[in-house]
Amino acid sequence: MDDLINKIIAFRDERDWKQFHNPKDLAISLTLEASELLETFQWKSSEQAVEANLNDIQDELADVLIYSMMLAHDLGIDVKSAILQKLEKNAEKYPIDKFKGTSRKYTEAE
Amino acid sequence: MDDLINKIIAFRDERDWKQFHNPKDLAISLTLEASELLETFQWKSSEQAVEANLNDIQDELADVLIYSMMLAHDLGIDVKSAILQKLEKNAEKYPIDKFKGTSRKYTEAE
Amino acid sequence: MDDLINKIIAFRDERDWKQFHNPKDLAISLTLEASELLETFQWKSSEQAVEANLNDIQDELADVLIYSMMLAHDLGIDVKSAILQKLEKNAEKYPIDKFKGTSRKYTEAE
Amino acid sequence: MDDLINKIIAFRDERDWKQFHNPKDLAISLTLEASELLETFQWKSSEQAVEANLNDIQDELADVLIYSMMLAHDLGIDVKSAILQKLEKNAEKYPIDKFKGTSRKYTEAE
Repeated sequence: MDDLINKIIAFRDERDWKQFHNPKDLAISLTLEASELLETFQWKSSEQAVEANLNDIQDELADVLIYSMMLAHDLGIDVKSAILQKLEKNAEKYPIDKFKGTSRKYTEAE
Repeated sequence: MDDLINKIIAFRDERDWKQFHNPKDLAISLTLEASELLETFQWKSSEQAVEANLNDIQDELADVLIYSMMLAHDLGIDVKSAILQKLEKNAEKYPIDKFKGTSRKYTEAE
Repeated sequence: MDDLINKIIAFRDERDWKQFHNPKDLAISLTLEASELLETFQWKSSEQAVEANLNDIQDELADVLIYSMMLAHDLGIDVKSAILQKLEKNAEKYPIDKFKGTSRKYTEAE
Repeated sequence: MDDLINKIIAFRDERDWKQFHNPKDLAISLTLEASELLETFQWKSSEQAVEANLNDIQDELADVLIYSMMLAHDLGIDVKSAILQKLEKNAEKYPIDKFKGTSRKYTEAE
């Protein structure tokens, strides 16, 4: 993971783009890339989209990950521990015995 | 990275949620989490948001990464090579000598 | 407003596109158009974006409105009363005496 | 329409919120509201979502429209002519004889 983040930051530094990348604008760009990913599914069933657009899905997903890792890096967030901590929080919000096999949200009544 | 993805998938399997996670609905959820991340910056400057909301930023970013890795896993996409391949494509679209120090998009005139 | 919505629906009917427009896919498309609108502001200050991209802003905003009105039409939602009812709800969540001159959300502590 | 926009702007002026509403932040908020609308469809089929969440769909759609009209107002965009002009552009991109009955995008090969 560290090696990957270093490559991403090197890509940015070679272009001297850090100056444009404040966290708010990175969050905007991350949203835009997530939408481009979603666009590969527009007007299609999930199966149709995967069959027609798998390469594009991979590329857009990579862009989402690249911006995510830039933002984490700039804010001093360790990606791995952020994920592990969030999984623990999600496990508390969604205990197995209450949420197994249901897509209900924790804010929705049983 | 593999270890992290295994933990994410184990979290899902314990809750038997794979049945709801077709790629299109995962892409929707990824977009929603990206928006929740962006929401931590709403009506604030970048600095104000980071000062007020760093913990929330970390949590929302983790959710973005969790859905990204689930989607990659389900589609057989290797996260690391997807990122490295996309960095190469981006490097072709944005050669250093033409794009150093500019936020211009490759689709915009010089 | 009714006249406008009729024109939008006529545009769709001429192309026989109603068959693709279930509400979920319309909501996806509305999100994608909102992102295209936001993209006109990417890496720019608000002023820079308005100066450089006002025509694109107008076009993307129109697409957001077109999908909004299609979705309202298909679900039997009257746009005008939906807005008036929501303004009333927002007025209850944000009473003038407590929220005048502050960008605080109603969920945030004073 | 004018009457509706006047009511929306009056709601804002009573709270003295114009100061926070630069076009970029309005575009962010519009995206966030579009995502809240999409969230009412998360993990559900279109039919399930409409059945379970029609009131929420109406409210979130209203928020999308409220921000859209604020942004149009602030930028001097006439909503009605923006929509009519965009319908004309879309009609050029999607001529009836080529796109009737297909969800293909104009950028996709026939």
